[in-house]
Amino acid sequence: MIVQKYKEMLDAKSVIRTLAETAAVRAKEIGSRNVFDYSLGNPSVPAPACFQEALLSLVKNEDPVSLHGYSPTLGIPSVKKAIADSLNRRFDMNYEPEHIFPVSAAAAAIAHALRAVTKEGDEVLTFAPFFPEYHPYVDLTGAVLKVVPPDTEKFQIRFDAFEEMLHEKTAAVLINTPNNPSGAVYSEETLQRLAEILNRKQKEYGHDIFLISDEPYREIVFDGKTQPYVSRFYVNTISCYSFSKALSLPGERIGYLAVNPACPDAALIVNMCGQISRGIGHNCPTSLMQLAVARVLDQTADFSIYEKNRDLLYQCLTDIGFEVKKPAGTFYIFPKALEEDAVAFCQKALAYDLVLVPADTFGCPGYFRMAYCMDTEKVERSLPVLRRFAREVYGK
Amino acid sequence: MIVQKYKEMLDAKSVIRTLAETAAVRAKEIGSRNVFDYSLGNPSVPAPACFQEALLSLVKNEDPVSLHGYSPTLGIPSVKKAIADSLNRRFDMNYEPEHIFPVSAAAAAIAHALRAVTKEGDEVLTFAPFFPEYHPYVDLTGAVLKVVPPDTEKFQIRFDAFEEMLHEKTAAVLINTPNNPSGAVYSEETLQRLAEILNRKQKEYGHDIFLISDEPYREIVFDGKTQPYVSRFYVNTISCYSFSKALSLPGERIGYLAVNPACPDAALIVNMCGQISRGIGHNCPTSLMQLAVARVLDQTADFSIYEKNRDLLYQCLTDIGFEVKKPAGTFYIFPKALEEDAVAFCQKALAYDLVLVPADTFGCPGYFRMAYCMDTEKVERSLPVLRRFAREVYGK
Repeated sequence: MIVQKYKEMLDAKSVIRTLAETAAVRAKEIGSRNVFDYSLGNPSVPAPACFQEALLSLVKNEDPVSLHGYSPTLGIPSVKKAIADSLNRRFDMNYEPEHIFPVSAAAAAIAHALRAVTKEGDEVLTFAPFFPEYHPYVDLTGAVLKVVPPDTEKFQIRFDAFEEMLHEKTAAVLINTPNNPSGAVYSEETLQRLAEILNRKQKEYGHDIFLISDEPYREIVFDGKTQPYVSRFYVNTISCYSFSKALSLPGERIGYLAVNPACPDAALIVNMCGQISRGIGHNCPTSLMQLAVARVLDQTADFSIYEKNRDLLYQCLTDIGFEVKKPAGTFYIFPKALEEDAVAFCQKALAYDLVLVPADTFGCPGYFRMAYCMDTEKVERSLPVLRRFAREVYGK
Repeated sequence: MIVQKYKEMLDAKSVIRTLAETAAVRAKEIGSRNVFDYSLGNPSVPAPACFQEALLSLVKNEDPVSLHGYSPTLGIPSVKKAIADSLNRRFDMNYEPEHIFPVSAAAAAIAHALRAVTKEGDEVLTFAPFFPEYHPYVDLTGAVLKVVPPDTEKFQIRFDAFEEMLHEKTAAVLINTPNNPSGAVYSEETLQRLAEILNRKQKEYGHDIFLISDEPYREIVFDGKTQPYVSRFYVNTISCYSFSKALSLPGERIGYLAVNPACPDAALIVNMCGQISRGIGHNCPTSLMQLAVARVLDQTADFSIYEKNRDLLYQCLTDIGFEVKKPAGTFYIFPKALEEDAVAFCQKALAYDLVLVPADTFGCPGYFRMAYCMDTEKVERSLPVLRRFAREVYGK
């Protein structure tokens, strides 16, 4: 008795993954050097040396029985404490270990948070442009994802549209800043206004509205700026963090969920996550990765390459005449396509071995995403190709 | 809006974990040396040296960007191939990589398998005594777990009771051999008869009944014997494997799900698992662990200590007069308590610093489990204590 729901999901595979597969096939034909694959958000800079050293030291020096032993359901206590301490130091919070749930990266953090605070039929609001994987995360809980249309001017929040879409059934709001795919960083003003509205609506509806904050790019902000810490603005915040981008470890599935200590249900939510974990067979991230990241919490990979790449692409795209906002963080840039149909635009780009992702599934038709986590040398070689494509196909 | 279902689960915490916590508290008072903690099934022998070497070699020699990079949704192809090859070699099967889904240990394998083949309201049958975590695995899919009463004579299957409980709504049967908690190994005869019944019932009902085979102890069989490979007996078998016990890596959350290649939906089920994974935020086990276990697939930790411990305990328990079957595998022994109420029995044992687990939640009231994954020296020291307890409390 094959379950139809999952079978049907197979027909709705990720556009990004499909494009990445196309790029891989093409790379076999002409060499990967010659395919300008801007599809996948896979970090291109190595994990910092301190992380590799932490791994080696743990494997060499720790007793293997305890090193590879079961993590408690709620995470390794010393790791939870180290994470709480680091967040408190950096963001002037007052987390205790009981507010921290180590988890298999942001995907699992969001999936756990959604299960803890939404039930069948509830609504979850998010803001376009948004990461398309939010759909499976929300859909499989039985809740419904509703997408607030984009602010294409600044890629902050269209509060008018947001207020219209909020209602009694809204159980959670899911945000992502720095944003994939726009590269925008939500400002203090944006976060303050968001919190004001949510506080007002909580009172009006007489129930909690949780803010689920997806923060894998929190550390990747350019021009010496930083991302204002979301949880400081709103009490009912569940921060979903991943080390995938910060430490360049996307395959190692390690992150955490942190519930604002002022939230009356903070410790309860973490405890519930332990129960959710039992049921979905998640059972903690690996002990080795928990212990290793705990040793390098305040470190990151070297993001200067991403900033360099952003500068090169932004300059080139504006020179060509693209409508594009300069990304404040992440490793994405999000220009408007040169024709209304971004799918057709990206299809035409493929003929130039430029792999670009149309943003229809990101809730922002007419735009496309470029993930510039690649060697600068390759970005440089792609620029004349981008120029030629725009000139030959669109007369730019 | 805290979800009530998970909140309620908090009140039904694992008996095993609760006892382990009691033991930990007592250990702080009198020293862990003096607490005979038979509660947790946490491997006590180290991972084999070849595994540690594989880890170190990967971290030292591989490019960190690719080593720690994203695993494809369906697992790393070279790892899937290595697993298929190893299974084919050892069990005379003909798996292809497309039938293998690397997964975060057996818990995740079972959770994925259940989601793929059962829907709301379906029934899943299992056999007492059974691992109590099957409840959250099944409950959170919306299906219903039904427990076939135990065969307390041989700890095989009570086929009369099983046949009575099978009906139209049975979507899957969940078995565990070598068995936690009984230590029994299902014989070829048991597996053949199980397959015959399932094949007959599939025809009668006109739909598939999947056999979900939970196999974390597959490699831990004593007296030079082996576990007959379950999937060889029945086509619609989903094997759920974990390296937790075989390689002593319970904290590293690594295993796989393998669908019998003769099952018409084998590759489809693996593909569906990829989709399920997206929704629950599982997204593959860590790249590092996938790559490391692939290098040592046919190796295991040294299980001779478990066999030695089994012999000591079995001898002592039968000497005392316990009714107990000699375990053929695992690191559990499963005697009948010396009074009808095993909960009361285990409570009294605590006064002797003997931490035993009553089997009521395993579906086998009146029995208790001892997990003898500990140093033999400690098992030896516990024997006179066991004798004293039986003598002083029960006059044995």
